[in-house]
Amino acid sequence: MLYNEMTKAELLKLREELMSAYEEKKGLGLNLSMARGKPSKEQLELSMPMLDVINKDTQFVGEDKLDIRNYGVLPGIMEARKFFADILEVKPENIVLYGNASLTLMYDTIARAYVKGILGSTPWCKLPKVKFLCPVPGYDRHFAISEFFGMEMINVPMNEDGPDMDMVEKLVSEDSAIKGIWCVPKYSNPSGYVYSDEVVKRFASLKPAAKDFRIYWDNAYIIHHLYPNEPTKILNIVEECAKAGNPDMVYEFCSTSKVTFPGAGISAMASSEANIKSTIAMMGSQIISHDKMNQLRHILFFPTMEDLEAHMAKHADIMRPKFETVITMLNDELGGLGIAEWTEPRGGYFIGFDAMEGCAKKIVSMCADAGVVMTDAGATYPYGNDPKDSNIRIAPSFPTIDELIEACKIFIICVKVASIDKILENK
Amino acid sequence: MLYNEMTKAELLKLREELMSAYEEKKGLGLNLSMARGKPSKEQLELSMPMLDVINKDTQFVGEDKLDIRNYGVLPGIMEARKFFADILEVKPENIVLYGNASLTLMYDTIARAYVKGILGSTPWCKLPKVKFLCPVPGYDRHFAISEFFGMEMINVPMNEDGPDMDMVEKLVSEDSAIKGIWCVPKYSNPSGYVYSDEVVKRFASLKPAAKDFRIYWDNAYIIHHLYPNEPTKILNIVEECAKAGNPDMVYEFCSTSKVTFPGAGISAMASSEANIKSTIAMMGSQIISHDKMNQLRHILFFPTMEDLEAHMAKHADIMRPKFETVITMLNDELGGLGIAEWTEPRGGYFIGFDAMEGCAKKIVSMCADAGVVMTDAGATYPYGNDPKDSNIRIAPSFPTIDELIEACKIFIICVKVASIDKILENK
Repeated sequence: MLYNEMTKAELLKLREELMSAYEEKKGLGLNLSMARGKPSKEQLELSMPMLDVINKDTQFVGEDKLDIRNYGVLPGIMEARKFFADILEVKPENIVLYGNASLTLMYDTIARAYVKGILGSTPWCKLPKVKFLCPVPGYDRHFAISEFFGMEMINVPMNEDGPDMDMVEKLVSEDSAIKGIWCVPKYSNPSGYVYSDEVVKRFASLKPAAKDFRIYWDNAYIIHHLYPNEPTKILNIVEECAKAGNPDMVYEFCSTSKVTFPGAGISAMASSEANIKSTIAMMGSQIISHDKMNQLRHILFFPTMEDLEAHMAKHADIMRPKFETVITMLNDELGGLGIAEWTEPRGGYFIGFDAMEGCAKKIVSMCADAGVVMTDAGATYPYGNDPKDSNIRIAPSFPTIDELIEACKIFIICVKVASIDKILENK
Repeated sequence: MLYNEMTKAELLKLREELMSAYEEKKGLGLNLSMARGKPSKEQLELSMPMLDVINKDTQFVGEDKLDIRNYGVLPGIMEARKFFADILEVKPENIVLYGNASLTLMYDTIARAYVKGILGSTPWCKLPKVKFLCPVPGYDRHFAISEFFGMEMINVPMNEDGPDMDMVEKLVSEDSAIKGIWCVPKYSNPSGYVYSDEVVKRFASLKPAAKDFRIYWDNAYIIHHLYPNEPTKILNIVEECAKAGNPDMVYEFCSTSKVTFPGAGISAMASSEANIKSTIAMMGSQIISHDKMNQLRHILFFPTMEDLEAHMAKHADIMRPKFETVITMLNDELGGLGIAEWTEPRGGYFIGFDAMEGCAKKIVSMCADAGVVMTDAGATYPYGNDPKDSNIRIAPSFPTIDELIEACKIFIICVKVASIDKILENK
């Protein structure tokens, strides 16, 4: 039954029951978290054999003809560039490798534009204003980079097939202060949405007013399927941009953070040869080479794409039941009440949840009081400001299934209570 | 006998003999390098056991109470902060860890000053001009960072006990556009000089016109002694700055690049708590954590400072004969000729060499033609411009001793020929 069709008395009675359950949960002194997209311990164990792939018999001189243990090979070892080229379906010369965090690669790419400009354009620090488009809800750490560099962020609504492209096309073509857009095209953070072919093609065909406009295409979950037998494919943005006559318009990012070890993986950028060359040239002032030993470790652990796929299928086997547990509980407990909506992703690390307007902060706060940490309400919006106070990001990866069930029970109670209070305001 | 006391005829005859030897060497088609401070293969082998220290029995939860294999612990794991705190003789809270390159840490520290300013001061990108003092000869990659950020570099002469402090004190106190100075205080690159206690104290007592003036103290060779039984000690700059009432005035840098694997080590910055806190806060936009697995690897490989010292003594045993080979050959072959001077470092990676004015480029070019690559003449000066065209950096670490002998023979011939030509200009 829809909550808003219940009488005030019914709602008050229900609220009392819920609060009694809530107080009971609160008394348990739980310490649970569905806040961050961290792999679980079980997932980390999958990559332990990678720590043994380098040994005294290892051949340290590879395609680059240099001892990998020593200085040199700024763009990353060729074998590892090929590894990412295979994942991203580009040529190795379209790839540059970075350290353990694609976040750093994104930050540094923005920083270089800020200090030196892009392919000869004016450095952003010399401009009165730089604006970025931010599909919302989106990834808080993207927004944090834009905020660090003093950009004005403009919200663009996310639909199930990607950002509102009418709005993107209009803004980008009219305003030369708009220098970029943050995208998580596959299994998006936080909704799990996947950009349709049409959306990708419209991105590739953008006609930006700014020559140094770039699409920041964070393909973080490119191989992170929950259902690896039915993997979701999206169009290759680097290829589509080249086809559309905009070869330099995109930077694509990717890493092994959620493939092997978060914080001890390797990352990569794919882009046009002009962008890659310019990036490597500028990187030369910052570093002699990233950790090639770790690049080698990854290559030896994943000699073929089949090995990588088999490994990702093991991740999926661990992740899938967690997602299904949460979604089943939401469907069973909140379905048909008219107080919330949620997504059912086929990959990635998050479930998107929309409460009634004005309820997200209260739900997250109630959860915290009962020992369940959720991502801060608002975090999925620039400046931490969700204008509807409605979106909550659910991260089911880290807890065990038993912990997830417990956390979801509390979350569901909080959603119900906050919704009742909202409805009662108007009764 | 001094070359400039020889007659023109004697010089011409000697030149003919030298050129005949040169042509003979050239005919050998050699491919040798004394160009970069790369550890040798033998040195790399010393750290191979480090690759096995992490295994299935490893305890991944340390002082920070988090699984090191997962996200988190932005400043670096506490055990590794303590490791660098011991090396740099500061407290762990004065340490922040970075990735595999202290160069990146220096670059990023400058980049953050450029974008955001230092502890509330105006970001450098908003200033009409930023100047840096550069003790010369110095490290080319330091100068490259300054050049990348568009700074004006001012040469300061290096003496045997450190930079010309009269000049440093005067410039720093008078010009608020001067925001920093690059220092390699111990076994300096390229001369191998060591800053005296008086110089360190004068640094710590600087009275800069700019509040955001910082000393960029690259203690790259802090534990890289050639004679570990007689290690050179310098005063602790972080401590001296604090004592002098300038606690925030220095950033000290250090790494394991030439301790374990270049490109696969760990790096650290030591500074005041205020500087470290501000750095960590800003790092949060760029990364979740650096490679903690590699931090763990280093800690387990060096459980105590004694283990580290024993390891560095093995490096010294490999490096010392190389330095002594070069220095002995220079003494034997060039001593008393009045055409060159060179240093006799007690640590570090380089020997400083000063040819007669106007000869360095010619020597390096002649060497290259005979198959011996030297660091570019001029590289030890900002903008690659050695006003006297005299300084050459000799890097003896990478070649074998046999290769070094061969390379030095050629180098010595080239020095003699270029010197004779120079003297003949005035005869």
